Amino acid sequence: MTHTLILLRHGQSEWNEKNLFTGWYDVNLTEKGRAEAARGGELLTEAGYKPEVLHTSLLTRAITTANLALEAAGRGWIPVHRDWRLNERHYGALQGKDKAQTLAEFGEEQFMQWRRSYDTPPPALDDASEFSQANDERYAELGENAPRTECLKDVLERMLPYWENEIKSDLSAGKTVLVTAHGNSLRALVKHLDGISDEAIAGLNIPTGIPLVYELDENFQPITVGGTYLDPDAAADAIKAVANQGRK
Amino acid sequence: MTHTLILLRHGQSEWNEKNLFTGWYDVNLTEKGRAEAARGGELLTEAGYKPEVLHTSLLTRAITTANLALEAAGRGWIPVHRDWRLNERHYGALQGKDKAQTLAEFGEEQFMQWRRSYDTPPPALDDASEFSQANDERYAELGENAPRTECLKDVLERMLPYWENEIKSDLSAGKTVLVTAHGNSLRALVKHLDGISDEAIAGLNIPTGIPLVYELDENFQPITVGGTYLDPDAAADAIKAVANQGRK
Repeated sequence: MTHTLILLRHGQSEWNEKNLFTGWYDVNLTEKGRAEAARGGELLTEAGYKPEVLHTSLLTRAITTANLALEAAGRGWIPVHRDWRLNERHYGALQGKDKAQTLAEFGEEQFMQWRRSYDTPPPALDDASEFSQANDERYAELGENAPRTECLKDVLERMLPYWENEIKSDLSAGKTVLVTAHGNSLRALVKHLDGISDEAIAGLNIPTGIPLVYELDENFQPITVGGTYLDPDAAADAIKAVANQGRK
Repeated sequence: MTHTLILLRHGQSEWNEKNLFTGWYDVNLTEKGRAEAARGGELLTEAGYKPEVLHTSLLTRAITTANLALEAAGRGWIPVHRDWRLNERHYGALQGKDKAQTLAEFGEEQFMQWRRSYDTPPPALDDASEFSQANDERYAELGENAPRTECLKDVLERMLPYWENEIKSDLSAGKTVLVTAHGNSLRALVKHLDGISDEAIAGLNIPTGIPLVYELDENFQPITVGGTYLDPDAAADAIKAVANQGRK
């Protein structure tokens, strides 16, 4: 028995457009991001994929992306599960900061370490910051365990239990699963699925709005390593753009 | 301990606009309906209501209404449960028919009996009809038990277990519950809450897009009979319009 898993990174958000570090800060999609999301749904339909259950993060940009994609695919009625474990990486004290300014201020080495180091998080975000989620009711159940910063390793560790307990359970039941999430929570999942090393994951970027389909075998191993983008040309172009974020 | 229950009927759909009987046929909202839904979310925010869990039907017009209302209220991240038991009344052989034509063809008495009789359903819809849901995968689990027509009594009987088992459970947990559904599934719920007779329910209409708030006591009895519309003037105007559907 094989399983079908579809990953979708949210479309452009207001802070992607402004080139700010976002993390757990909750921003809306831009009009471009909304169009990307709808196009993602059309790509699913054109390729004949029919998601039967949706998993999303608790962040509006991923939720709206899922809503628009599924509306475009005529499948807004499928069951939905939302969980903080699918959230974007918490970007710590960088949340709300301009990426280009941060690069100029701290230099290439520090900037790339914060963006792509596997196990070094940025400094923690102060609870008093306007960009903090310390008093956000949607994370109340986490209490003091809510992150104040995360590296990709932290994301992988908090995401994996959700993969193991929730997503694999739906796949095992024979359902086509759509996961609508973020650059770093999806990188963490792809790292796990494809067995990518701590070093090599730094070079992996996932484009926005283009469904990435994994067919998995009975042991949840990818039949095609890296999965398959439903629009490979657009994906290749977008991957280059993500890699160059923060640069002129 | 009191409970807060918010009911929201979906905004104008493509078939409301065309004056066709819709029932379980799955149609989208019009632009007007989308604006109504967003306005419903703004009314929630203006009145200080914060839904903590959402229950919707399996029909796109209710789901999109909920998505747009919660997006406008900044609460798209709350948990969601969808169930066919909150669906609109199945309109049987009337699905897809023009309301004015049906009135002209069958006369006032038959027309009003189909629209407002408590316990007489229209003729059943043939599974071969283009307006049938017999092969719709979202109802596959119902098998042969899926309705082919319903009167309001049927709607109340299939809705009630969902109210008892799911919605009351969330209310008992202290959560503010939003139910986004349809003219007749909401009429059935209101009939139950307010103890309206089988005869008097014929005269009750629920307007689209205006949140109707019930504060319930510890026995789930309304503290104010009939609840409270968040925009009472608009609700009064809209109720008149609903009552006149099918007429010139």
